[in-house]
Amino acid sequence: MSVLIAERPGAGTGEDGTSLPFPYLLFLGDVTEAGFAKTAFGLRDWAPDKCVGEFSIPGASVSTGLAPMRPPEAVARGARGLLIGVANPGGVIPDTWMPALLEALESGLDIVSGMHAMLATFPALRDAAARLGRSLIDVRTPPAGIRVASGTPRSGKRILTVGTDCALGKKYTALAVSAGLQRRGIAADFRATGQTGIMIAGSGIPIDAVISDFLAGAAEMLSPAADPEHIDVVEGQGSLFHPSYAAVSLGLLHGSQPDGFIVCHDPSRTAILGHPAYPLPSIEAVILQTVALGRTTNPAIRCYGISLNTSSLSADEAERALEDTSQRLALPAADPMRPGDRFERLLDACIA
Amino acid sequence: MSVLIAERPGAGTGEDGTSLPFPYLLFLGDVTEAGFAKTAFGLRDWAPDKCVGEFSIPGASVSTGLAPMRPPEAVARGARGLLIGVANPGGVIPDTWMPALLEALESGLDIVSGMHAMLATFPALRDAAARLGRSLIDVRTPPAGIRVASGTPRSGKRILTVGTDCALGKKYTALAVSAGLQRRGIAADFRATGQTGIMIAGSGIPIDAVISDFLAGAAEMLSPAADPEHIDVVEGQGSLFHPSYAAVSLGLLHGSQPDGFIVCHDPSRTAILGHPAYPLPSIEAVILQTVALGRTTNPAIRCYGISLNTSSLSADEAERALEDTSQRLALPAADPMRPGDRFERLLDACIA
Repeated sequence: MSVLIAERPGAGTGEDGTSLPFPYLLFLGDVTEAGFAKTAFGLRDWAPDKCVGEFSIPGASVSTGLAPMRPPEAVARGARGLLIGVANPGGVIPDTWMPALLEALESGLDIVSGMHAMLATFPALRDAAARLGRSLIDVRTPPAGIRVASGTPRSGKRILTVGTDCALGKKYTALAVSAGLQRRGIAADFRATGQTGIMIAGSGIPIDAVISDFLAGAAEMLSPAADPEHIDVVEGQGSLFHPSYAAVSLGLLHGSQPDGFIVCHDPSRTAILGHPAYPLPSIEAVILQTVALGRTTNPAIRCYGISLNTSSLSADEAERALEDTSQRLALPAADPMRPGDRFERLLDACIA
Repeated sequence: MSVLIAERPGAGTGEDGTSLPFPYLLFLGDVTEAGFAKTAFGLRDWAPDKCVGEFSIPGASVSTGLAPMRPPEAVARGARGLLIGVANPGGVIPDTWMPALLEALESGLDIVSGMHAMLATFPALRDAAARLGRSLIDVRTPPAGIRVASGTPRSGKRILTVGTDCALGKKYTALAVSAGLQRRGIAADFRATGQTGIMIAGSGIPIDAVISDFLAGAAEMLSPAADPEHIDVVEGQGSLFHPSYAAVSLGLLHGSQPDGFIVCHDPSRTAILGHPAYPLPSIEAVILQTVALGRTTNPAIRCYGISLNTSSLSADEAERALEDTSQRLALPAADPMRPGDRFERLLDACIA
């Protein structure tokens, strides 16, 4: 993450220099389309303990259901950061948001953003942050100090979510699995590699923004050595079969050194998203390729199970798809959005 | 490449914004160890038409054999850039070089550097370049405007050198193959992906310095669509089996969409350089993995042959190693440093 810390180095960041300033006040701007507030909804659903309320400006018609409040009240309730929970086409920060963002800084909040536009490129924000000693944190920017991967084995267990494509449930699956393991009393952490995941976790590395030479090294840094029984559940990115992003997937695989992986798949998809000439790989192909490449840094790597995104299917169709997939591959198959026995069996496989 | 162009945007770069200002005057500083002048020797050997002479300061005891001259004479002979052809441990630019570098700028030369230290971070150089309208070019910095890979097939043929490891002849092989093809009257270009290669070619992209998301896109940009019979010979990087750099190799493979590849190997090496716990993969494993991954973006990909770095072997041993390798794999095997029939058969395979 890029942390502009004016006058007060370290302000607003955690002890390790990578934690975000939660709890957050979720900023919704003047959003009128629920789809553009996905980040805020993700925070509400996955990190309710990190959210004290929501804040919007006149014109907004979307709400997360959290208590509406202005920055001073949020600060009084313990908030440390204003998190921009809304996106618009282009990822720009409109002028109409500026008074609200400045109010947040004046009230003592840092600002956390995943927008394309970098916060520090707005002179009004930069000047106010400098004057007030507040931080402007762009989660799309990797932290400093990432090293080349060592390839050295490390203690602790790691699970990586991989996929037949982008955008079909790797973050959701990793969140659900880490939460499920924690519910069973297992020491587990979700390790975030994309901007929404980083906001939810409060830390992480936007892996696709790392310089190529340091990609595997960033993945090593993200899931460091831990107690032998501790489990890091690492949010996957892209797909080894993606014509644009496979390198990101491979660097993350090599650096994570996962003991096991879960293949995420959407049975309704037939081609790589945005690349109609590229047929979707089979789950089998992804398992074989992930093992073939992953064993470079962890020879014991194996597939723990399958996460199917069955959002396009009825309950009956979903059950049939999960049963068929599980039978065919002799592996647990579950949709984390449909909790129950199947998901518990997937968790069983993760700790077997 | 990072081009600081003070006051005169575009100065010192070619029409496409990526060509370096050759011919060069090779700067040797005060070098006393031939090993530290590797870049200058590489330029002399592979791009003699791009070098007008050499320039060193008192204390230097190493020479490339090119005519010694000061910057004004080099300019009179057509030089456009001073190329720092010497490295020292740490890649720093010592104060003792500064008068020579400033003399170059004053004489009308741009400066080209592959050092770790960025030229523009030296106030004296930055100020002089700004005042004189000269460029300070760091070839370790990728160009702007790299896009995400499209994955769309493109015209022209491409050959990629791949390897069982780093630093065993991928650049040398690509240079030798492109020169060999040109000698046969074939339209071929060497496409550089590392700093020395970029200086030799006069253009290129330092692929390992590209942001991960744009890695395959950079490789697409590096070897653009060309005439159907034109051949781009792309300098490979790393190895698909390297614990730190495999992602770089994969992004380069996917974006290059090579029709064929040459596996570079050093028979004296038993482990990945700097990673003794990682055994060197076999040539066979590299062929299988390169085909398995490369066919994502070019289903017709195949191995054209093997380039053995036999520098540690006697002539007889080298011949035996080449014959054994060729027999075992049923592919041409040659050491480009030992020209002859074997190398010609490798070229035959590249155009079959």
